[in-house]
Amino acid sequence: MNEAQKLTGGFTMPGESGYEELTLELAKRWGADVIRDSDGTQLSDDILNAGYGIYSTICIIRDQNEWAKKNQDKLQSCLLSTGSKIACGTDKLTIDLLEDYFDEQFQVNDSDEAIRYYQVIDRTTGEVLSRDKWRYDKSLKSVIIDDPVSFHSYTVNFFVFRIWEEISMYNHTTNNWDKEHLMQIDPVYEETREYMRSWLRKWCDDHPMTTVVRFTSLFYNFVWIWGSNLKNRHLYSDWGSYDFTVSPKMLDEFKKKYGYALEAEDFINGGKLHVTHMPPGKKQRDYMEFVNDFVVGFGKELVDIVHECGKKAYVFYDDSWIGIEPTGERFKEFGFDGLIKCVFSGFEVRLNSEVPVKTHEIRLHPYLFPVGLGGLPTFMDGGDPTRDARNYWKQVRRGMLRSRIDRIGLGGYLHLLEGYPDFVDYIEEISNDFRRIKNLHLEGEPEAADIKVAVLHSWGHLRSWTLSGHFHETYMHDLIHVNEALSGMPLNVSFISFEDVLNKGISEYDVILNAGIRGTAWSGGDIWKNAELIERINEWVFNGGTFIGINEPSAVCDDNEYRVFAMADVLGVDKDIVSRICHGRWSFDLSEDEAVLKGSDIPLNCKVHLTDGKARVLIGENGFPRLTINDFGKGRGIYLSGFATSPINDRMLFNLIMYGSAVDKKNIDLTADDPFIDMAFFPNSNTVVCVNNSDIRREATVNINGKKYDLGYIDAYKTVFHNIGGGQK
Amino acid sequence: MNEAQKLTGGFTMPGESGYEELTLELAKRWGADVIRDSDGTQLSDDILNAGYGIYSTICIIRDQNEWAKKNQDKLQSCLLSTGSKIACGTDKLTIDLLEDYFDEQFQVNDSDEAIRYYQVIDRTTGEVLSRDKWRYDKSLKSVIIDDPVSFHSYTVNFFVFRIWEEISMYNHTTNNWDKEHLMQIDPVYEETREYMRSWLRKWCDDHPMTTVVRFTSLFYNFVWIWGSNLKNRHLYSDWGSYDFTVSPKMLDEFKKKYGYALEAEDFINGGKLHVTHMPPGKKQRDYMEFVNDFVVGFGKELVDIVHECGKKAYVFYDDSWIGIEPTGERFKEFGFDGLIKCVFSGFEVRLNSEVPVKTHEIRLHPYLFPVGLGGLPTFMDGGDPTRDARNYWKQVRRGMLRSRIDRIGLGGYLHLLEGYPDFVDYIEEISNDFRRIKNLHLEGEPEAADIKVAVLHSWGHLRSWTLSGHFHETYMHDLIHVNEALSGMPLNVSFISFEDVLNKGISEYDVILNAGIRGTAWSGGDIWKNAELIERINEWVFNGGTFIGINEPSAVCDDNEYRVFAMADVLGVDKDIVSRICHGRWSFDLSEDEAVLKGSDIPLNCKVHLTDGKARVLIGENGFPRLTINDFGKGRGIYLSGFATSPINDRMLFNLIMYGSAVDKKNIDLTADDPFIDMAFFPNSNTVVCVNNSDIRREATVNINGKKYDLGYIDAYKTVFHNIGGGQK
Repeated sequence: MNEAQKLTGGFTMPGESGYEELTLELAKRWGADVIRDSDGTQLSDDILNAGYGIYSTICIIRDQNEWAKKNQDKLQSCLLSTGSKIACGTDKLTIDLLEDYFDEQFQVNDSDEAIRYYQVIDRTTGEVLSRDKWRYDKSLKSVIIDDPVSFHSYTVNFFVFRIWEEISMYNHTTNNWDKEHLMQIDPVYEETREYMRSWLRKWCDDHPMTTVVRFTSLFYNFVWIWGSNLKNRHLYSDWGSYDFTVSPKMLDEFKKKYGYALEAEDFINGGKLHVTHMPPGKKQRDYMEFVNDFVVGFGKELVDIVHECGKKAYVFYDDSWIGIEPTGERFKEFGFDGLIKCVFSGFEVRLNSEVPVKTHEIRLHPYLFPVGLGGLPTFMDGGDPTRDARNYWKQVRRGMLRSRIDRIGLGGYLHLLEGYPDFVDYIEEISNDFRRIKNLHLEGEPEAADIKVAVLHSWGHLRSWTLSGHFHETYMHDLIHVNEALSGMPLNVSFISFEDVLNKGISEYDVILNAGIRGTAWSGGDIWKNAELIERINEWVFNGGTFIGINEPSAVCDDNEYRVFAMADVLGVDKDIVSRICHGRWSFDLSEDEAVLKGSDIPLNCKVHLTDGKARVLIGENGFPRLTINDFGKGRGIYLSGFATSPINDRMLFNLIMYGSAVDKKNIDLTADDPFIDMAFFPNSNTVVCVNNSDIRREATVNINGKKYDLGYIDAYKTVFHNIGGGQK
Repeated sequence: MNEAQKLTGGFTMPGESGYEELTLELAKRWGADVIRDSDGTQLSDDILNAGYGIYSTICIIRDQNEWAKKNQDKLQSCLLSTGSKIACGTDKLTIDLLEDYFDEQFQVNDSDEAIRYYQVIDRTTGEVLSRDKWRYDKSLKSVIIDDPVSFHSYTVNFFVFRIWEEISMYNHTTNNWDKEHLMQIDPVYEETREYMRSWLRKWCDDHPMTTVVRFTSLFYNFVWIWGSNLKNRHLYSDWGSYDFTVSPKMLDEFKKKYGYALEAEDFINGGKLHVTHMPPGKKQRDYMEFVNDFVVGFGKELVDIVHECGKKAYVFYDDSWIGIEPTGERFKEFGFDGLIKCVFSGFEVRLNSEVPVKTHEIRLHPYLFPVGLGGLPTFMDGGDPTRDARNYWKQVRRGMLRSRIDRIGLGGYLHLLEGYPDFVDYIEEISNDFRRIKNLHLEGEPEAADIKVAVLHSWGHLRSWTLSGHFHETYMHDLIHVNEALSGMPLNVSFISFEDVLNKGISEYDVILNAGIRGTAWSGGDIWKNAELIERINEWVFNGGTFIGINEPSAVCDDNEYRVFAMADVLGVDKDIVSRICHGRWSFDLSEDEAVLKGSDIPLNCKVHLTDGKARVLIGENGFPRLTINDFGKGRGIYLSGFATSPINDRMLFNLIMYGSAVDKKNIDLTADDPFIDMAFFPNSNTVVCVNNSDIRREATVNINGKKYDLGYIDAYKTVFHNIGGGQK
């Protein structure tokens, strides 16, 4: 049954003018049904008229320099804060606002409506200076404090216009372009919105062959702040922060709607800004909701225009995606027809397929660019694009086994493929595998163990699967490793917030998992001081639930609390803090129950001690437990001192979840004996898909509902499809 | 001038009945002038009448079992807390008070006056239960909560009598003794005091040959709590805590004197108890002052009795030393004639010599015991007591070069020396070296650089030199490494508290050093939120001071503060906290100025970033600075990410102190070129003492006030004395 089936469709490829023959030849080989342009390429009439669907990318806030120049008071803004300046016995302190910032990205906004929001703060006391204690010097672009307290430090919060669209700025400086800087206009103003509406209508009229308008993305970029000094160029970046949406007008509107005012320090946050990895506060959530409402409202207008013009509207889930929130409650109101996300990992596949939209498309890596991630060679000397594609596909495919993706595609410049026939072959192979997997999903979902796992963190469903950006940007967090591991497991996974625990209840779940560094959004921070939250989860475990805590789960931020891990009763361990330095530690013998753990490796990201000596230690050394299981009523707490995804560690995590949950359940087993093989069983098709995630041939012995099937050998990295006969439908 | 001089005196040796000849022979060889008994040994008449001074040890709270048995309500007490017990949907929760504790050490004190202080706490909410919500069951020795909140955890704070004196308990269980447990009686009761007075008078009458009564020590032991489970036997130990002084009567008296009541939780402190490594609070300080006053008052009475009997009174600075506070302001009121401390390290020599008492005596290691530190063999097969003695002497001698010690001595069982002639020879050698060094001190103090270094921490002078116990008990704190390094340096070292900075000023100091883990007493904790403190030190640095910060200096405990290091303006670095995960880091090139650093090695105990890129990084790698210097006005901040004492690292620290301070000062140089050699110059005697701290022969080229002297080679570990002619006096 492993014969190649020639399926077509569901594939978006980049076309390139001047390479019409190559474009059309590859379109055929890869079974493409859609051809797209890429940044800097155009599609010639030969391509446009070849009968393929045509994607066209637009970035509605960016390619508008002519209008932007005439409306420079309608460029996008944000709040910045100066570094702290100390007053050393001088009469006055002059603080140059932009000293630390890249002056090609920012320009001081010293309009009256902006200065109303300026704040000067004594950072030695935390006090905000009253307005009469400082003045602004327009010629120096500086704030002057005439009578500072000696040896106190001061900062200024101030507004800037952003005068260079950040993605453009990055591409421009990285590639040493010599062209005009593109600015970004702000739809918070009605004039801008009106301009955009008419611009889009005209664009649609001018592009009759376009079948899909791909928005890249809508209005507001994630936060990316550059510094003046080349030794500290990248001051800040956060893929999920709303801080680039802020303008005096946005704050004025917020106050009207929410009845209270936000001030600059609510965003500057002691210089820390709003880090997605940290728990959001009430004001931050209100502001996000407010912006989301605005983006949905005006975004829907634009989508409607596209629809009126007889085209489809897809949105790209990166760059200016802020306020769109594809996993938020209001996303469906936009009316987008599809969502495209570029992916490196399984969790990104799951994230994409979770969005309520008709067409889920993923952009595979590597892009057809000379260089790839971190500037390493791809389609040039020293590169091995087939190896790269295989490694990414290995991760992506796991997620695809579990949930449906409708389309795949590539981006970049087709002419680079000349000289890489292996790569062309490999894309043909995986696009065929993709189509077979997709068709299986269309016939009926794969079987999953009847186990509901909830990943619990501050953001809940709003940050399902992802933390903030790609794996390589967030690898230091245990949870991204967990999410990547879960993305390929035959389980039912949800992402829930602490409010969900309190408001919706958790009785439906078998396993709750909380993983992360103390104080982060992933662990939860001081929400764990809420006694009701603790009660609820304690009770749920007592009645049979399994609470899995990793690194610093349920950790309050304050060492003065009775315990650091609020769930210490359930886990039977707590974090070592410095005041315990005079306290003894329970010694332990390793539990014999190690079958689930073979070869697994748990990082010691947190040092803990046993609270009452009752938890069984399965892995531990030098007095430090790394994996413990603690019985609690009918349930249990499982603690891991860290987690790093790998085939063997992923299997350990799966076994722990099954161990914890299977007590009163049908022990559904949906794994291969070999942890390097992932599998999915599609009962409606009686088909097992097995994938080899390693570079050697492996034997696929799989277990399905208590029955063992020997499906023979799978070559390194390959996907095989087996019909196992005897349907269940 | 390096000839052996036969000096005698200043040496206390243990005598042993049955080994009279050995005792007297060794007394002569070692130049002893005093013979002592040891625990379990007696001195026979032949020894008592041989013309030596006689030390006798007494432990006034311990060897009183007959009286103790008749007065069991006057045994010593303390407060304990149960482990937390969770209510899992049951009607009532029964908490067995002593479940977790060693029942041979503790007995529940359920007298009415004790129960008044009991507290039952809901640890899920932090709420103390009102008295009607719980009852005490005398037969079960348990507290019962009749209507607990489901899935909340509870603890009970309660009083116990301590029924086995802890040092005795340790010796007993370690050596498997089979004899009566010794109890400890509490002088908080007037009846106990009256008994002790008359007992001591009688003891003195019964011991006419005794010239010195050595108190071991006075009334209250440091805290040492044992558990019921052998897997967690040592629940808690703290060499400096006052928690073993607490009794209902002591608390009642406290309230009368201070006008406010302390409650059990003030001591239990969320189960953390009072760890000396943590910053003390106001109540804790009040209570310590109160107990100190009591111990000084009654202790003085006992010393007076000894004096009235024509004997001297020395006190041992360990075991039941709580409330004595030799470096406290009131110590001199006792009237002690001498203080004895057993030492392993240079800092303990400095600690001893700082106490305002006539005779400073140190007890050298190893003791004449079969086993030594950590149970390793000493005077038995596999032991090498001469090696051990040399290693301890090497550390101790450095401190002795800097400040005067009057007496040295040994403890233990003399008969063990048969078969260890090397050891006997070695003690003869070092006792002669000791006497020569002591005599130099008597002729005039050694020269020190005109540089005043203040070590700044929460305890200030009260915890000069030591943290809490010996080096091997506190090695995980940077500051003990610093103190050990400083103990042999030709500098003027003080220990000051934060209150000293605010109340006494710091203008006299050239260098202030703050070293430790965030939140500890050594770093200082949240005192660093005090703006006045920051102002004062900023100003002092600006005017020329050098602030040296190590590990997490001046660190507030709260990540929400603007900065973690309150002295970040001065240091030019701040701690990386998790919310900075999206922030960039200054890259740096290493400063060329590395002469002071040759071969030194700085542990990365804390990861920091440059705040404004201006600090020079002298050591650093992978983006993490380990040693930085930041100019600030006329002064500077120096940051080290950790410190571990070693000859080379100590020299680096000395160089940094000199570098920081020498700007406006006479550049006094009092070092050997070789960092493995320490030296002291005694100007009144025109004598240089050089010591080789290594196991190989080294050349002593020393620098004294700009002049270089080549003093030839020193053999491994040896001490040499050189007269360099031309006196300065």
